[in-house]
Amino acid sequence: MRSIAALVFPGFETLDLFGPIEMFGLLQDEFSISIVAEQAGGVTSAQGQRVCVDCTFCDTRAFDMLLVPGGPGTRTELTNPAVLDWLKAASANAEIIMSVCTGSVLLASAGLLDSCRATSNKMSFDWVAQQRRDVDWVGEARWVEDGRFFTSSGVSAGMDMSLAVIARLLDRAAADKVARIAEYEWHDDAARDPFATQYGLS
Amino acid sequence: MRSIAALVFPGFETLDLFGPIEMFGLLQDEFSISIVAEQAGGVTSAQGQRVCVDCTFCDTRAFDMLLVPGGPGTRTELTNPAVLDWLKAASANAEIIMSVCTGSVLLASAGLLDSCRATSNKMSFDWVAQQRRDVDWVGEARWVEDGRFFTSSGVSAGMDMSLAVIARLLDRAAADKVARIAEYEWHDDAARDPFATQYGLS
Repeated sequence: MRSIAALVFPGFETLDLFGPIEMFGLLQDEFSISIVAEQAGGVTSAQGQRVCVDCTFCDTRAFDMLLVPGGPGTRTELTNPAVLDWLKAASANAEIIMSVCTGSVLLASAGLLDSCRATSNKMSFDWVAQQRRDVDWVGEARWVEDGRFFTSSGVSAGMDMSLAVIARLLDRAAADKVARIAEYEWHDDAARDPFATQYGLS
Repeated sequence: MRSIAALVFPGFETLDLFGPIEMFGLLQDEFSISIVAEQAGGVTSAQGQRVCVDCTFCDTRAFDMLLVPGGPGTRTELTNPAVLDWLKAASANAEIIMSVCTGSVLLASAGLLDSCRATSNKMSFDWVAQQRRDVDWVGEARWVEDGRFFTSSGVSAGMDMSLAVIARLLDRAAADKVARIAEYEWHDDAARDPFATQYGLS
């Protein structure tokens, strides 16, 4: 059983968080998920719904995996030392660190992606890449795997990346089972990015 | 601006709710979303996260649209008179009524789908169809549109259906814009159901 810390902050993107949670959450014997935030209570997404926080940065338990969503709130959290410090501490011994969409700008700003290959969503790609030039930013990718870091493209790509993580940690059959239960047509080729062209990044 | 009531109950399926919320929520000038439940507070999904309730069944405001997720919790709510009565009352004057996955069993149990064409997820299809034989259940469909009712197949299909609803209420360009922002490859053919064969329903 692996523990996942799913970070939330005001203005996180709904599907960045809940797409991966659906995929990992369908394997409840394999993964347990905690919603983590700077403060206790509820945190409101960019789409206006509030999710309840399971634990705060004060809770220093070690998680096996991190999930960092993107969304408009990253523009603020980018310079929030509490978030960056938590990312650094929580990632120190984590087996897998994941971001969806502009969530990678938070990992990058914490210095975690220096010299790594990584991606972000397409609409904000140039802005993300400008925030940290020490990262090897990849414009055309559904997701990028570099060691223990998995960074995905925008919003929906987080589900494809999550299935790839499941395939790596468990096996392909487990990922296919999750996709079938969720009736999700898994785009399982990390290099195929139909949106890179639309946004002029290929 | 149209108002959407998104029903939640203990054990709702995460992505059934938040996939559509992402799609409609990206058009905040067009749609406002309220999380509605029998009781105030937080409601826990099948995957274990808690969402905060915006209003309860006691709030009798009229909503333009309803969204009903599925999930294991439907097995209990199926016979919950509070839920069935709310569905009947809230749907009376609604322009659009949507369900995802086994959410259609709640609409059916409230008698709302009698003589309508409708679908459900594939894994629980036979169970759903047995609960109300007066519905014209369609085994092979990504989603089914019948008048003001949109019922989708399992989990991920709710996102495809939501984009179809956006295309009908606004226009195709609006749906394409949402899909592009969410980097979602919209499966826009309601009749194409790759999972019907896998589950022996085609």
